[in-house]
Amino acid sequence: MSKTILITGGARSGKSGIAETIALSLAPRAVYIATAEVRDQEMASRVALHQERRGEEWSTLAEPLDLAGALAATDGQGPRLVDCLTLWLTNLMLGGHDWRAAGRALAEALPAQTDPVIFVTNEVGSGIVPDNALAREFRDAAGLLNQWIAAASDEVILAVSGLPLKVK
Amino acid sequence: MSKTILITGGARSGKSGIAETIALSLAPRAVYIATAEVRDQEMASRVALHQERRGEEWSTLAEPLDLAGALAATDGQGPRLVDCLTLWLTNLMLGGHDWRAAGRALAEALPAQTDPVIFVTNEVGSGIVPDNALAREFRDAAGLLNQWIAAASDEVILAVSGLPLKVK
Amino acid sequence: MSKTILITGGARSGKSGIAETIALSLAPRAVYIATAEVRDQEMASRVALHQERRGEEWSTLAEPLDLAGALAATDGQGPRLVDCLTLWLTNLMLGGHDWRAAGRALAEALPAQTDPVIFVTNEVGSGIVPDNALAREFRDAAGLLNQWIAAASDEVILAVSGLPLKVK
Repeated sequence: MSKTILITGGARSGKSGIAETIALSLAPRAVYIATAEVRDQEMASRVALHQERRGEEWSTLAEPLDLAGALAATDGQGPRLVDCLTLWLTNLMLGGHDWRAAGRALAEALPAQTDPVIFVTNEVGSGIVPDNALAREFRDAAGLLNQWIAAASDEVILAVSGLPLKVK
Repeated sequence: MSKTILITGGARSGKSGIAETIALSLAPRAVYIATAEVRDQEMASRVALHQERRGEEWSTLAEPLDLAGALAATDGQGPRLVDCLTLWLTNLMLGGHDWRAAGRALAEALPAQTDPVIFVTNEVGSGIVPDNALAREFRDAAGLLNQWIAAASDEVILAVSGLPLKVK
Repeated sequence: MSKTILITGGARSGKSGIAETIALSLAPRAVYIATAEVRDQEMASRVALHQERRGEEWSTLAEPLDLAGALAATDGQGPRLVDCLTLWLTNLMLGGHDWRAAGRALAEALPAQTDPVIFVTNEVGSGIVPDNALAREFRDAAGLLNQWIAAASDEVILAVSGLPLKVK
């Protein structure tokens, strides 16, 4: 039976490192599903940094929008690490897609998976209320998406200073 | 003897849902004490969304300022859910009231309660330091208020992606 | 053998109070190493408030940059409370110093300590992504520094509403 794990935490809290360690503890090879759309130099550097840290145990699939499809296509290839849900949500919202429908469809696709799925996501709602309405809408959406995926997950981990804190 | 519970967490972390579940686990009917002052359409929508989710087990009392009075007036009617302390603090500060005195008076009113009190509050201090002094003053005040109520509470729960993480 | 403890948390989450209690539980007298550079009236008030709360059990050393040196100079005088790493990082970055080298050197200096070291640091990465690149760079640096010190620490505690939540 498949296992779903959600790793959440703030920026640079060590989420990706924890997720990678878990993925390779489940199987010798794993699939990295990158949701990042490289739109500027800062993001390109960040993606390169992440790829450098991962070794040859990983195959990489870039999928900014159709995560349910990417999971269906990679099932049977080992644990899938989706990094990250927050960028996926950004892509959906910027592209004018129905993020609620997509988020619910993703949660509903999880029980059908044979190989494990490990999601990385971000805590974006613990700062002061943002001035602009779009940022408030985004953090509300991110919080709801995290709740939906957490409810469908077997384990939920909060990353704090690089360390895993068990929530579920 | 009365029980006091504080539920804290970021935006859309599932705080209210957790609080409502706890309240109705303690008694068949509960009182919802809303601190929101509806000042614009965005807030009106948010309040309506919350009310829609709650069912007939709830009676509602709107009290933007005098929380100690609202608790005194509703003691004997079942568990009280106060949602939320951060909006209450906003009302106190915008109205030029002494939030420190009000916060301490609220904490001191808790041991006298017969029916349980469940507070919802927000984490607002885990982002980057805000540019403007008023926002910094608000997050400092919110943090202090949370500390005072947490110290007077029997249980404190951190909501993470809709899940409760026991702190006290 | 020395013990290293990291206390992290948002603004006004009770980090310093928790750290002070731990320090004085380890020995009757302790050393407070302040990294704050007093640059304006707001910071001066905050420093004064912190000093007022501490009693005669404390000696104070102000060191905005050379933390490894301050630890070497105070070893043998009892537990050292470093408050806080985030201000230290600010000082390093504003001064054009190599914060990565300084951070790693600090982590490497910890095993050689005889007396305990208690670090206070801040969670700054759980809000919405900041608009400006410098703020993003700072929160990335703060997250990495927290990870390095957490990896070198025996205990890591997340402060929530004034209460300690054990992470490591």
